Amino acid sequence: MMERFHTLRFQPQGATARVPAGISVFEAAGWVGITIDSTCGGRGTCAKCRVRLLAGELPPTEADRRSFSAAELSRGWRIACRSRLGEVPLVLEIEVPALATKPKAALLGHGRHVVLAPCVQLRHLVLTPPTLEDQTADLSRLRRALPDLELEVPLAVLRTLPAVLRAAAFELTAVVVGHRLVAVEPGDTSAQHFGLALDLGTTTIVAAVIDLTSGEIVALGSALNDQERFGSDVISRISHAMETRTGMAQLRETVLASINELLVHLLGSASLSGERVYHAMVAGNSTMLHLLLAVDADALALVPFTPAFSEPLDLAAREVGLAIHSEARIETFPLLGAYVGADIVAGVLATGIGRDDRNCLLIDIGTNGEIVLGTPTRILAAAAPAGPAFEGAEIRCGMLATDGAIEAVRMGKTVELEIIGGAPEARGICGSGLADAVAGLLKAGLLDSSGRLKRRDEAPDHPLCDRLVAIDGMPAFRLAEAVELTQLDLRALQNAKGAIAAGVQLLLADAGLQAQQLDEILLTGSFGTYIDPASAQAIGLVPPVGSERVIAAGNSSLEGAKMALLSFREKQLANGLAETIEYVELSGRADFNQAFTDSLAFPVPGAVA
Amino acid sequence: MMERFHTLRFQPQGATARVPAGISVFEAAGWVGITIDSTCGGRGTCAKCRVRLLAGELPPTEADRRSFSAAELSRGWRIACRSRLGEVPLVLEIEVPALATKPKAALLGHGRHVVLAPCVQLRHLVLTPPTLEDQTADLSRLRRALPDLELEVPLAVLRTLPAVLRAAAFELTAVVVGHRLVAVEPGDTSAQHFGLALDLGTTTIVAAVIDLTSGEIVALGSALNDQERFGSDVISRISHAMETRTGMAQLRETVLASINELLVHLLGSASLSGERVYHAMVAGNSTMLHLLLAVDADALALVPFTPAFSEPLDLAAREVGLAIHSEARIETFPLLGAYVGADIVAGVLATGIGRDDRNCLLIDIGTNGEIVLGTPTRILAAAAPAGPAFEGAEIRCGMLATDGAIEAVRMGKTVELEIIGGAPEARGICGSGLADAVAGLLKAGLLDSSGRLKRRDEAPDHPLCDRLVAIDGMPAFRLAEAVELTQLDLRALQNAKGAIAAGVQLLLADAGLQAQQLDEILLTGSFGTYIDPASAQAIGLVPPVGSERVIAAGNSSLEGAKMALLSFREKQLANGLAETIEYVELSGRADFNQAFTDSLAFPVPGAVA
Repeated sequence: MMERFHTLRFQPQGATARVPAGISVFEAAGWVGITIDSTCGGRGTCAKCRVRLLAGELPPTEADRRSFSAAELSRGWRIACRSRLGEVPLVLEIEVPALATKPKAALLGHGRHVVLAPCVQLRHLVLTPPTLEDQTADLSRLRRALPDLELEVPLAVLRTLPAVLRAAAFELTAVVVGHRLVAVEPGDTSAQHFGLALDLGTTTIVAAVIDLTSGEIVALGSALNDQERFGSDVISRISHAMETRTGMAQLRETVLASINELLVHLLGSASLSGERVYHAMVAGNSTMLHLLLAVDADALALVPFTPAFSEPLDLAAREVGLAIHSEARIETFPLLGAYVGADIVAGVLATGIGRDDRNCLLIDIGTNGEIVLGTPTRILAAAAPAGPAFEGAEIRCGMLATDGAIEAVRMGKTVELEIIGGAPEARGICGSGLADAVAGLLKAGLLDSSGRLKRRDEAPDHPLCDRLVAIDGMPAFRLAEAVELTQLDLRALQNAKGAIAAGVQLLLADAGLQAQQLDEILLTGSFGTYIDPASAQAIGLVPPVGSERVIAAGNSSLEGAKMALLSFREKQLANGLAETIEYVELSGRADFNQAFTDSLAFPVPGAVA
Repeated sequence: MMERFHTLRFQPQGATARVPAGISVFEAAGWVGITIDSTCGGRGTCAKCRVRLLAGELPPTEADRRSFSAAELSRGWRIACRSRLGEVPLVLEIEVPALATKPKAALLGHGRHVVLAPCVQLRHLVLTPPTLEDQTADLSRLRRALPDLELEVPLAVLRTLPAVLRAAAFELTAVVVGHRLVAVEPGDTSAQHFGLALDLGTTTIVAAVIDLTSGEIVALGSALNDQERFGSDVISRISHAMETRTGMAQLRETVLASINELLVHLLGSASLSGERVYHAMVAGNSTMLHLLLAVDADALALVPFTPAFSEPLDLAAREVGLAIHSEARIETFPLLGAYVGADIVAGVLATGIGRDDRNCLLIDIGTNGEIVLGTPTRILAAAAPAGPAFEGAEIRCGMLATDGAIEAVRMGKTVELEIIGGAPEARGICGSGLADAVAGLLKAGLLDSSGRLKRRDEAPDHPLCDRLVAIDGMPAFRLAEAVELTQLDLRALQNAKGAIAAGVQLLLADAGLQAQQLDEILLTGSFGTYIDPASAQAIGLVPPVGSERVIAAGNSSLEGAKMALLSFREKQLANGLAETIEYVELSGRADFNQAFTDSLAFPVPGAVA
């Protein structure tokens, strides 16, 4: 197998990072949770991130020559953030000096340790006022005080600059995101500032307002995406945009209203002004991002399924329409394709897939099942056409995971239900309940591996036999007074899990791996947060590995957005992921149909751990 | 004298260019009107601009190593546009191979030869449509076809991209200005495109629409700046913005309305759509630029006279409010200070001051007299507080150079007048008429060098004696039935010319020059276009040099804007001028008052050429 990654062993910690080209030594340390001293956070201005090369070759950079004597260079001293790893894979051993101060860090994502270095910088400045001897223009005066930045200055900020400078005797705070001056404020306002992490789902919008100085979440909440009015899946939304002249504008305004209402609520609950939120990281599927920005999405829905853009975008809040500071930067994660979107890239960031020497599978189950397989040398991703069964759609009594939904089922001689909101009567069943119910029916012998549900006369002695009913002449199983699973529902679930399992099978084959070689299977998305890993395995949704290796990883997309907010290095990594991840299109492949047919059967109970 | 410039002698032409650091060999050739072969226009992508070093040292660049063999390098071959001249002044002799094709060029400004390389590029592209095997996003597909550009893409353009690509089977034209994608259009629209040159004066707005493929002016016109309603000079306009809550918005909307009305007229006369105008270069004084952009201008009017910005700005037409393509780029020239503005920088570009080994003086007379002195080693600039007398303000019968104004006066035994518009009766007198009249009165012996006008009883035998009248008890000279020049008017003119002459005197002293060493005196601005150079000299407005050296140079500010539109290299040069030109603040200097007092007297007639 061709080695495509650099191997960096850090001492005295003894941790090994495997990183692709383009990453700096400083960043590579961060990948394995090792912090190197730095004041500027790796932006290349403080020259404090000194490390020493113990083994391997790493030619000195310009920065190294400026910072070290010839003797120091030959002893291996290097500036870590300026040493970028090239195309030829290296094996290096690197000594990291003890930290002078303990940096602030946060534990985010799937056990990821992130050193706080937010994309937003607040620079408190005291400028010398102009005189007849120094008539330097206000903007040039500001630039002079920020020699390490080459700022792009929006007209709106330039308009306020003279008054802001003179409001507090040329003492001000410059708010910078990336290379953009987002705001200037009189006096010192650098003590607190906020960011917004946003996961934009077809059904649900989740937002977190984060204190960027501490890394703490100050408000977290979710709302339904009111675009639901125009159809529950992405295809019907795109159709709406295509078919009516004002369709796109309606869709955009609708989702913006949903987001902004949620924002008002969250900011209100934390007694915060949106004017103090200077940065947002937006994850979401490809269609949702197109519709949020009113970018023509027709081609996403038609063969050959082409997005208008796949690169990360960097826009002003006023352009997007988000109700935070009007010049705040709104950044989106890159997309991999029409059906593997920015949410998956954010999830890969949050779970650290592909950053170590383990084989790890990430499954995000929604309308499509998005699958990512990370190995020590490759990251593969695909979208399996699972349909929305696990979201409760196409299921007779299916519903979203809201009040009244059966979210867990335990089946033995009786049937025990857990209902969301503690209602006495179930109104329907959501994805995690469905997985439990199917797993229970298989174990109880009422559903065979071909997916056929027994009729009452075929299991007359079974303790649950009187729950076997007929609805419109079709076999069904009654879970509650008003909630039945029909044979048709079970077929829909079978198709859904078959599509996902087939996708997994193809990615494993492409990577030359057996299922048993998987070290970890992470289930994400709102469904993945609640599904019982044992049920996921019992119905054959995930491959047969030890059940301790199947983990519900929560909303990894939102976690990725939070990480990118809190660390510009993590954001850079995420932006590079679209280059690193190999997107595998399943819809054109003959072997996918074969794998799907092979994957339709449910596992025989007890055959796996 | 310390040498700050590189000296490049080009062969076989034998022309010598003297250029500052930062200029490429390719650009240096352009300075002296020599064209080097190039397809990309010196953007560094075609590698066709091969030249050979005959004498001097110029180390090979990366581009040279890629393009030439070791033997060729040692014979002196270099890529001209990649060879930038550094800080240490060089003396080089360079051979320019004969041109394979004759490039388009235009004669602009003050005899300046500009090779057409407009900032706007129209790239006609035929892309391969996406397939299931190549689902590359539309934007990435476009980028792939433009590998030499790192484009910034506005959201508005991204929104249209998918539909544009699919409108003509993935054949399109990309409109690029600098590093920005301004538009995408179906099919091949590259045959014609336009730019706008704009000179934004306190009184008058002048605009030219230029065909960027031919360099020809397709429409040219002027309009009064309707901000006049809020005061005729910049100070009263700034006061209006400061004093009323909506003042700034009013001023901005007013000037935009004036510009956009003029644009509608010009575009209509050429049967053009504003949608085909992708780029505008805006020159104007510092106050006008601030007010156009609604940037707080208060500090311009108060000691120590500080602009909000001095760097060149690059904005979208939709931000500025200009009625051309909404994503067109609007660029402003840099400012030197509160009272030496972007119009002067454009004028320096147009006149080529400081680019050769001559001593050249540029005087732009308006509310202030802006003065630039170029020598072989330095360029100095200053604003002299002349007041608006030469614009006809503060003069009893003064008026702008419009219908009914006396624009020329010949005085002998009789008085002959030229009246604008050929009206039989004069309504007033404009600047050029004023200069002629004062020159005539001096020559006729009716005005002495102290500035005192004779009373009728002091010149009873003079053929013009019955034109010596008294108005409100004050001596005056009657030019026409309704037009008199009073003693007060003559004092105002005396002060105005005294301030300008004092400014010139100080700049000459700072540069260590005598007036006689001036090779050329260029008079610009609308006043400079019409004034009789002999009269300018007779009244002492310009120093006593041979009158053939005093030249009316027209609207050099508009010419500079046209040059920058037609050549991105000229624009780069203009943007660098703010660093090159030394701004001399006169208002704080004690020697200015002395020079002013010394300069008040009018010259004794016949004492100079």
